[in-house]
Amino acid sequence: VEYRSKYGDILLSNCQLGTIPMQRIKQVNKPTTLITDEIRRIDSRENAFTKARRGDYGPAVQRESPHAATKDPLSVSLADIRRFVALVETNEIAPHIAPIPEDPGVLTRHIKRLGYFLRADIMRVCNLPEYAVYSHDFQGNPIDINYKFAIVIIMAKEYPTLRASNGYDWIGVPLSYDLYLRLAVISETIANYIRRLGYSASPEYTGKMPEGCRVLFAPLLLWSGVGEVSRAGLILNPFLGMHYKAAAVLTDMPLLPDKPVNFGLQDFCQHCEICADFCPSKAIPRGNKVIHNGYETWKLNEKLCHSFRVLNKKGTYCGRCIKVCPWTKPNTLPHDLVRWSVQHSGFARRIAIKASKALKPEKAESNKKWWFDLEETDGVLTIPPDID
Amino acid sequence: VEYRSKYGDILLSNCQLGTIPMQRIKQVNKPTTLITDEIRRIDSRENAFTKARRGDYGPAVQRESPHAATKDPLSVSLADIRRFVALVETNEIAPHIAPIPEDPGVLTRHIKRLGYFLRADIMRVCNLPEYAVYSHDFQGNPIDINYKFAIVIIMAKEYPTLRASNGYDWIGVPLSYDLYLRLAVISETIANYIRRLGYSASPEYTGKMPEGCRVLFAPLLLWSGVGEVSRAGLILNPFLGMHYKAAAVLTDMPLLPDKPVNFGLQDFCQHCEICADFCPSKAIPRGNKVIHNGYETWKLNEKLCHSFRVLNKKGTYCGRCIKVCPWTKPNTLPHDLVRWSVQHSGFARRIAIKASKALKPEKAESNKKWWFDLEETDGVLTIPPDID
Repeated sequence: VEYRSKYGDILLSNCQLGTIPMQRIKQVNKPTTLITDEIRRIDSRENAFTKARRGDYGPAVQRESPHAATKDPLSVSLADIRRFVALVETNEIAPHIAPIPEDPGVLTRHIKRLGYFLRADIMRVCNLPEYAVYSHDFQGNPIDINYKFAIVIIMAKEYPTLRASNGYDWIGVPLSYDLYLRLAVISETIANYIRRLGYSASPEYTGKMPEGCRVLFAPLLLWSGVGEVSRAGLILNPFLGMHYKAAAVLTDMPLLPDKPVNFGLQDFCQHCEICADFCPSKAIPRGNKVIHNGYETWKLNEKLCHSFRVLNKKGTYCGRCIKVCPWTKPNTLPHDLVRWSVQHSGFARRIAIKASKALKPEKAESNKKWWFDLEETDGVLTIPPDID
Repeated sequence: VEYRSKYGDILLSNCQLGTIPMQRIKQVNKPTTLITDEIRRIDSRENAFTKARRGDYGPAVQRESPHAATKDPLSVSLADIRRFVALVETNEIAPHIAPIPEDPGVLTRHIKRLGYFLRADIMRVCNLPEYAVYSHDFQGNPIDINYKFAIVIIMAKEYPTLRASNGYDWIGVPLSYDLYLRLAVISETIANYIRRLGYSASPEYTGKMPEGCRVLFAPLLLWSGVGEVSRAGLILNPFLGMHYKAAAVLTDMPLLPDKPVNFGLQDFCQHCEICADFCPSKAIPRGNKVIHNGYETWKLNEKLCHSFRVLNKKGTYCGRCIKVCPWTKPNTLPHDLVRWSVQHSGFARRIAIKASKALKPEKAESNKKWWFDLEETDGVLTIPPDID
């Protein structure tokens, strides 16, 4: 009550805080994906990138791996600057808790609104499940951290560029690295601020130095209600499809977790196989979900997917599934109407899938292509010989 | 012609590249402000900040100066992270120019579109006038640089927060520091990329280390056509008013300069004195422009302005003129109609000024206030005693 005069109703009401109306999506108590109690913690080194580098995917993939993500000059520039952001020193937690409300609802809305102020696209919160924390970090050290909450920060790929791309060309990695850089900046800023308020806070983002990111984002995205599991194996948001990246700030500041969401995606992906149709590596499965490490999910063939990305001569990596997904649509009225109807009707989902196929989701708006196809090898730029 | 297949028409046409339709504004050959040939280069240490610190504005201002800009925890967090960005090491210029078109028009549109990709709000280009380069840097060294062009990067303050602010409260500095941090990141990234293409490039932004920013932004904003001189002394953009910040990348890459703009602001500001009416320090002059260091401009009383900012007990610094300016309006259809009509008609300008006064431009949307009023002294946070 004492603080009432010091902030606005915006921190007490349920009004929308950012530009994306997540409050319109049905909130549920559990993720729409079955999560059993048999999930084991994963070593952060056990991912496609490290497997590729140590030769699990064959000698050609091993040889190309070190430079595959940064073979165009714009990706290298974005990675360069991120390296310096990742050197940020951790400030000390203030010895006293700040004279601010202790109400978790108010604090949650304050931190979310701060995220939007700093240009996040979606801010969500969940409890931090133990299995979302990797067992070992990039340096091989066991991870023993214990935070109550994860603040999940989402940023969307620059949409007009995604439209201009075919999904596996020379703007693929820059589309992601733009986000990784900005997510590094925003999560370091929010963590620094929370520590100044007297609470613990650890920023976790792709490229964090030196220990690497210490959490798996998929369970955080499910529990905080960013999206549902998709056929392509990524967590799909109803407004951003899969064209976004996430970072997190882990904290013990008292917060109010969000709930998972259900917008009919399990049925949608069951009947839609557009991503599988267009996947150049045939890594995306057709048919039904399986149980994998305790999750009920469609299981991507990581070896096929990552090998194609690394060996792709027509661009940097690949995000073709993101490009062709019917959910990769702008936030305009006609698309909002479709978005609403497919949440509520299986019939609408069938129609939407048919319409998406008919409208050629694979098409690149090539007249909007603004980047140059350039490959950087030892600081020398050449035009790659093999471009679509 | 060889490159035609490798990029889209977007780099050849005149279509709008970002979200702000600057092409709708009348382009002219010279700034609407008279610039004589008597402009002397300025020492970068000769600004209100350094004058305040060395005691030119009296002992009280001198004493408060060191901490005035970073007395709230969010500003300190944003400044902390920017310090690390400012430590970015300069990459070498590639020994060969990249195999890309040498057409200045294509290169200009490529770099501008890159800026929008990286979330700039406006990208413009001008020749670099000698008098836009400071004579000495922050460390006292003479500046001797010679670049042909300045790429001007504009980012707008987060508008909903500006609406919630009264212009001199505890969110003033964070509104600017959010931009300074993001401008540091984007200008370092673009400069790094241009150097990889084989051209010189120097990022210039507020907080650059260790030499400080080496250019004055006002002449760059005038010549590149970001805006016109306003009564408050800042360069006003027709879509963003004065609620933006600028950075620049200086380069010799062949570019096509933009032209200055004329949207009727000299007549508008002559008749509108809203900023002067509401200025808490009475630093903004009424009446006519004067000639100052070769520029025809309204001359702000820097001592009054800066002393108020430093001694302000009700918040961090002050941006009241930005808050109350009739041009601080969102990019919506009704405002676009007014924007169009005041460009073309003196009568419309008189009506718009009257309407602005009647609509209480000073009003803060206090129900949207999401920040806490907090003052940080030696790491301890307190609620400032004197809040409006």
